[in-house]
Amino acid sequence: MAGEFALIHALRAIATDPAARALADDAAVLAIGGETLVLTLDTVVESVHYLATDPAADVAWKLVAVNVSDLSAKGAIPLGCLYSHALGEEEWDRAFLEGLDEACRHFAMPLLGGDTVRMPEGAPRSFSLTALGTGPKDCAVPSRTAAKPRDQVWVSGTIGDAGLGLAAALGTLTGPPEHLAALAAHYRRPMPKPRLGAALAPLVHAMMDISDGLLVDTARIAESSGVAIRIEAEAVPLSLALQAVTGGAIEARIAAMTAGDDYELLFTAPPENAVSIRETAEKANCSVAVIGTVDAGGGLTLVHQGKPLPLPERLGYQH
Amino acid sequence: MAGEFALIHALRAIATDPAARALADDAAVLAIGGETLVLTLDTVVESVHYLATDPAADVAWKLVAVNVSDLSAKGAIPLGCLYSHALGEEEWDRAFLEGLDEACRHFAMPLLGGDTVRMPEGAPRSFSLTALGTGPKDCAVPSRTAAKPRDQVWVSGTIGDAGLGLAAALGTLTGPPEHLAALAAHYRRPMPKPRLGAALAPLVHAMMDISDGLLVDTARIAESSGVAIRIEAEAVPLSLALQAVTGGAIEARIAAMTAGDDYELLFTAPPENAVSIRETAEKANCSVAVIGTVDAGGGLTLVHQGKPLPLPERLGYQH
Repeated sequence: MAGEFALIHALRAIATDPAARALADDAAVLAIGGETLVLTLDTVVESVHYLATDPAADVAWKLVAVNVSDLSAKGAIPLGCLYSHALGEEEWDRAFLEGLDEACRHFAMPLLGGDTVRMPEGAPRSFSLTALGTGPKDCAVPSRTAAKPRDQVWVSGTIGDAGLGLAAALGTLTGPPEHLAALAAHYRRPMPKPRLGAALAPLVHAMMDISDGLLVDTARIAESSGVAIRIEAEAVPLSLALQAVTGGAIEARIAAMTAGDDYELLFTAPPENAVSIRETAEKANCSVAVIGTVDAGGGLTLVHQGKPLPLPERLGYQH
Repeated sequence: MAGEFALIHALRAIATDPAARALADDAAVLAIGGETLVLTLDTVVESVHYLATDPAADVAWKLVAVNVSDLSAKGAIPLGCLYSHALGEEEWDRAFLEGLDEACRHFAMPLLGGDTVRMPEGAPRSFSLTALGTGPKDCAVPSRTAAKPRDQVWVSGTIGDAGLGLAAALGTLTGPPEHLAALAAHYRRPMPKPRLGAALAPLVHAMMDISDGLLVDTARIAESSGVAIRIEAEAVPLSLALQAVTGGAIEARIAAMTAGDDYELLFTAPPENAVSIRETAEKANCSVAVIGTVDAGGGLTLVHQGKPLPLPERLGYQH
């Protein structure tokens, strides 16, 4: 962990080009010709980010989706991707490609190139994917650093489904089978929303995707933007499935807010944009909800029914 | 091996976007905002592409250089890169970053982003790098498929140095120390030539980089272009160091033509462009040499002092 921090620190000293955004955003942003190119790269490692027993098609879907999620958070429409494939068992690889193809089609992000490599016998494999998208034309590419006092804090979709979905996928969760299936699907096949991100870009101040947990990612926006953010716990949207399985009490709500893998959009915007934001989401057939407010100051606070709620010890997946 | 072929076949069925060039070229080529974007991704795996005992800075240099070599072959000027770093031992990682920084500066290719991942305990690591470049403005991006009968076949630099350099680096080669050092440097720190590639692009028909061996890569151009190529063995340029260490007999010459890791340019062009090509190379302070000719038909033939020479069993590194 200390090694990772030291390495990222050293990388920041190298990546001084403004397009790198100090390696502190979801993606790199590069002007080329009359377009804005948004670029992101994510790697998944066997036994770290996925299990060898996970369905190969889902591993591939997730690799594509997490990169599309980064593009979505920058208001970018997918343009194409390149990926690196570590060769393994033939049937597993074939299923992986099926999932990759399905995801590339779903997100309209053609596969443009890549590399295939052999691994030493028995070594865990890893897959890297670079996604490119075209950023918004008539506004800045949203960053994590632009939240302003008076903004409202918004999320798309519902929160915590994938976290519970992992337990559902592992068979360690009980509840109505249709709800367990819905939660597991959230974990296995995240559904980022690039069209929504692109449509929201001109209306927001800060935007990022929620990958490590709502609370930890909100704390990152607060820190990057130098503002205080207050979240109303009861305003955080929970799915019917999650409510049915957990009962929806405050403990379950906090668990949802600290669970990873949501791949929903988290953004802040001035209150006068609220109507346009709701209309934009409706047109994109997505739900959005106000969950808090931005103030001058610093840090994250949590409120439940008007009363301060102590922050949980773990705000999400931190690395 | 069979698995890799099957996988690449399946990938080609997915990568149907014209920008992917059927995954049969050195890079993807994408039109965006009035510019041509050239994209490539290469991965190196510990104990497959490099040894854990190799100097970390050289591993990083090579990762950057092999990608720049792909850009150079498409006449593209480096624009930036993203890479994925598998965390390891802290000192090794720090040295790796120094080599990465040095190479990015040398090739004027800023680091724009990437990912850091942890590996399972003791697992071999891998590093993927995606390089972007801007392609030529006033001509097509050279492909492997455009060689035409009557073309001359050219190479830049000298051939076979890196192959011998590996032996020099491993200490299994004897000869004058200054020559051994020069050869080892070719192996450890390949020097692709993006400015030369960009300047040559309007003058060539087909172009690729030599990574797996001169003969096998020439055979690939012949096959992709549907032409016959004849190489004059004695015209292949060999360095003074290689000649001094090997004596430069025909066996050494054939070994040089089948050795990998040259990262020089291999291209074909109509004879009327020869003068411009020589002038262009001189301006870029690079050497170029005509080593053969293109004819109608198919396949690769090798000639030595006017007499046909049987092709060696292994034309290079084939995968």
